[in-house]
Amino acid sequence: MKSDIDIARKANLKNIEEIAKQIGISDEFLEPFGKYIAKVDTKILKTLENKKDGKLILVTAMTPTPAGEGKTTTSIGLSMALNKIGKKSIVTLREPSLGPVFGIKGGAAGGGYSQVLPMENINLHFTGDIHAVSAAHNLLSAVIDAHIKFGNELGIDPAKIYWKRTMDMNDRALRQIVVGLGGSANGYPREDGFIITAASEIMAILCLAKDITDLKERISNIVVAQSYDKKLIKVKDLKIQGAMAALLRDAIKPNLVQTIENTPAFIHGGPFANIAHGTNSIIATKMALKLADYVVTEAGFAADLGAEKFLDFVAPTAGYDVNVVVIVATIKALKYHGGLKKNELDKENVEAMIKGLENLKTHIENLKKYNVPVVVTLNVFNTDTQKELEEFSKHCETPHALVYAFEKGGEGAIDLANLVLENIVENQYTPLIKNDMSLEEKIKILAKEIYRARDVIYTDTAKSKLRFLKKHGYDTLPVIIAKTQSSISDDPKKINAPKDYDFTIRNFELSAGAGFVVALAGDIMRMPGLSKIPNAVNIDIDEDGNIVGLS
Amino acid sequence: MKSDIDIARKANLKNIEEIAKQIGISDEFLEPFGKYIAKVDTKILKTLENKKDGKLILVTAMTPTPAGEGKTTTSIGLSMALNKIGKKSIVTLREPSLGPVFGIKGGAAGGGYSQVLPMENINLHFTGDIHAVSAAHNLLSAVIDAHIKFGNELGIDPAKIYWKRTMDMNDRALRQIVVGLGGSANGYPREDGFIITAASEIMAILCLAKDITDLKERISNIVVAQSYDKKLIKVKDLKIQGAMAALLRDAIKPNLVQTIENTPAFIHGGPFANIAHGTNSIIATKMALKLADYVVTEAGFAADLGAEKFLDFVAPTAGYDVNVVVIVATIKALKYHGGLKKNELDKENVEAMIKGLENLKTHIENLKKYNVPVVVTLNVFNTDTQKELEEFSKHCETPHALVYAFEKGGEGAIDLANLVLENIVENQYTPLIKNDMSLEEKIKILAKEIYRARDVIYTDTAKSKLRFLKKHGYDTLPVIIAKTQSSISDDPKKINAPKDYDFTIRNFELSAGAGFVVALAGDIMRMPGLSKIPNAVNIDIDEDGNIVGLS
Repeated sequence: MKSDIDIARKANLKNIEEIAKQIGISDEFLEPFGKYIAKVDTKILKTLENKKDGKLILVTAMTPTPAGEGKTTTSIGLSMALNKIGKKSIVTLREPSLGPVFGIKGGAAGGGYSQVLPMENINLHFTGDIHAVSAAHNLLSAVIDAHIKFGNELGIDPAKIYWKRTMDMNDRALRQIVVGLGGSANGYPREDGFIITAASEIMAILCLAKDITDLKERISNIVVAQSYDKKLIKVKDLKIQGAMAALLRDAIKPNLVQTIENTPAFIHGGPFANIAHGTNSIIATKMALKLADYVVTEAGFAADLGAEKFLDFVAPTAGYDVNVVVIVATIKALKYHGGLKKNELDKENVEAMIKGLENLKTHIENLKKYNVPVVVTLNVFNTDTQKELEEFSKHCETPHALVYAFEKGGEGAIDLANLVLENIVENQYTPLIKNDMSLEEKIKILAKEIYRARDVIYTDTAKSKLRFLKKHGYDTLPVIIAKTQSSISDDPKKINAPKDYDFTIRNFELSAGAGFVVALAGDIMRMPGLSKIPNAVNIDIDEDGNIVGLS
Repeated sequence: MKSDIDIARKANLKNIEEIAKQIGISDEFLEPFGKYIAKVDTKILKTLENKKDGKLILVTAMTPTPAGEGKTTTSIGLSMALNKIGKKSIVTLREPSLGPVFGIKGGAAGGGYSQVLPMENINLHFTGDIHAVSAAHNLLSAVIDAHIKFGNELGIDPAKIYWKRTMDMNDRALRQIVVGLGGSANGYPREDGFIITAASEIMAILCLAKDITDLKERISNIVVAQSYDKKLIKVKDLKIQGAMAALLRDAIKPNLVQTIENTPAFIHGGPFANIAHGTNSIIATKMALKLADYVVTEAGFAADLGAEKFLDFVAPTAGYDVNVVVIVATIKALKYHGGLKKNELDKENVEAMIKGLENLKTHIENLKKYNVPVVVTLNVFNTDTQKELEEFSKHCETPHALVYAFEKGGEGAIDLANLVLENIVENQYTPLIKNDMSLEEKIKILAKEIYRARDVIYTDTAKSKLRFLKKHGYDTLPVIIAKTQSSISDDPKKINAPKDYDFTIRNFELSAGAGFVVALAGDIMRMPGLSKIPNAVNIDIDEDGNIVGLS
């Protein structure tokens, strides 16, 4: 098998102007970044207002396992397959963070014959959006500490600063730090920490904002600290929402690239799917819906995290209709949830596979509660046996198709594309969560209907934070559940289809600018670390500027 | 007077492809970033090998004062004036850092009718080079701490880690910090700090590297720490020079933009002029020398800092001939060095002005020691009186011209352009410092000949560090003196033309990758702070994406 980068280098890329023209974007709205990447001016949206939206296809997955499910690869393959059978399709994805690129994953631009290109650029810096988010985020941090140093007019309590600093890197040493040491010239000592940029509220805001004015408004409402007299301090009190928005002027414009088969792809924004909503920007998907008949978009992690947030929060915020949901499964993941260990997944085991179907079934049942048609796609690996594939088809009662997108590109996803087209509906999707419910009501519904818990338990910390949120009028905001991606429950060890357990909310975090409250149902890592031998040691560049070690 | 941004918006910019064509860069080497910015592929240099270099005009200044001297504005104006009188000229400048943009200055793209454009982009993110430097720098930090956490095979002494983290922000709270708190999952606690990206050794390396291979080689030689058994730990021991260089793949390519009058400008790299060498990248200037007959380049701070480093280190490293040096003076700065306070500078005072000429004279004498012709240019402000200007001309014995570049653009610098052309020489420039001298010899020559000191004193710390450098074979590297920019001496309070004092070296720092040793002759700020009311509160963006508050 050729490496991703070898396959990528052999691709026949078209100039980005040509890709843009293909979907009706004229040069006046195009800001090229080299020959194969362009930002699209959001002003184009005004000219498309009266155009009907295309159909939205949401790709999600069963509960992930250490083997990897290939959701991005499937999304890319599906979009290419739709184009192959004569439909006009765009795929919309999140931007990769540098942390995982240098950590373990090595990249996040699909794989094999289903990649978005140029993968080196997409994985490293791309059009600088994530760096812009970091800069806007850290400007706020610097202004907070400067404000306190120079008289602290707002009376900010240094022990009640909620706004941490950020960096797009896996750097565990920055999780908990003390800043401002060395005497009064450097400010005052206080505890602080860094989170990875994908976990920044600014990243969430960038992906939710309608336009630059909405972006600025959301930024101005970020709650950064509490004052000595218990008032909430917002960005607007520090008067730097304009500067922060200015830093994001270009970052708000969607990035257009292409797949290995020249299917247009918007790759824009990259919020985490635990601490935030986990899908690419609303602006990019809205733009895609105006420019294509079928938009394939991917939600982070499994259906209980990414798809739930998409269906209960992102789609209602954006005003999307969701026309069909594709859920990615693999034989390996099914066997894992059926009880096998990671090193046993390569061996045939029909029984474990059938047992693990409970996980997939739970996600399918969950998704049907949103009144959307669900189709299953099995991402076939070369270790899957014929018998396993046959037994899967026999036992999976939901419409399903096998995909070979990694190996064959769009060609390998044509069955899936046809199945998707057969199942598309309009105006049926309904969120499970109603906006005007209280936080507790929302959490209760999710815990019972999606996470299959018996009851919800709140820790004392969570109860106290809930009172705080009520006091300040934030208790009917949308809720983002932050929990493990390794289980449908709040316990990473509970594989397959856990039920009848107590779902515990440990704390809440307010993202008043983004417009949601995060309910923490587990330890959420907001700053990953590098491993003993990080992928960075595999990455190199030759004298002609060719990069190796990304995948 | 119109604001810089108002003037900028009225400019008739040409598409960057057209600007490129003007100097013979064909599309194949051009990577556009939007309509008005492009990176130029360094592969073009191979095709130009046999072309004769143009003439190099170095712009420097007398000792700066709080009033500002307008060196960038003059450089831009001079290059435009050369084009106006029929010469083919390019200006090469450093990239602005975000720190000063949000701090005090508000921008660094020239001013009035002598600006490089689009100034909003140049001031905010530009083509992402500085972010790329930050990412490469911080990847190294994360790898060092991960290495120690996972067994510390190299035996790195956590108390002897020289490599701090970096951020492109004025953030004093990060100057001195403790990282790795919170238990062993987060590593181990140790003292650390952040420096601003312009002060990063990676930035210096980017601006000195011949090509990507040289860049990688220099990175691999960076000394990051000492081991328990007193060995020096280099990047190559951690094996991530490839990943760091990969992050800089695009950053190494010069950025082409244009001035308000469509003069081509390379803006590339932004190292500090105290802790590093303070001029734009060698690659950009070399490219400009192949593409134009006259290249105007600017060195940071005053002639004793930027020009000295250019003439003793950058030009010998790059192999430049330096054909003429322009030294920028202002009536205000002369009066300041003549003893007036900042608030007295607007009033006519010929006597103070004449007294302050000593500062200018010292710099001129210094520069002549390099066998280069020197011309003086007086940057005229509207507060300067006719009498002051006349008396200046009477007392300044060096060839000089008045410039009005801020007010009139290239037209206002034609006298200067003609004077420059008259004074250009070839193959006369000679560095003052010889490469094979010891660090002490080099410092002694600079202290006596340039800083006009009686003697050089070394603190005990400096002496001990000198022994360390000798032990490890770094004692004949080029020397970069880090000292105050406010005086020719090492004491910011000594204005005008100090002499016969003791020049004190407090410490040394090794930049083994960049290939120099920094001799610290003062407190050098490597992480600035924001002021009480930072410029960030003046910056805003409207619904059409227009940014205000930059200048």
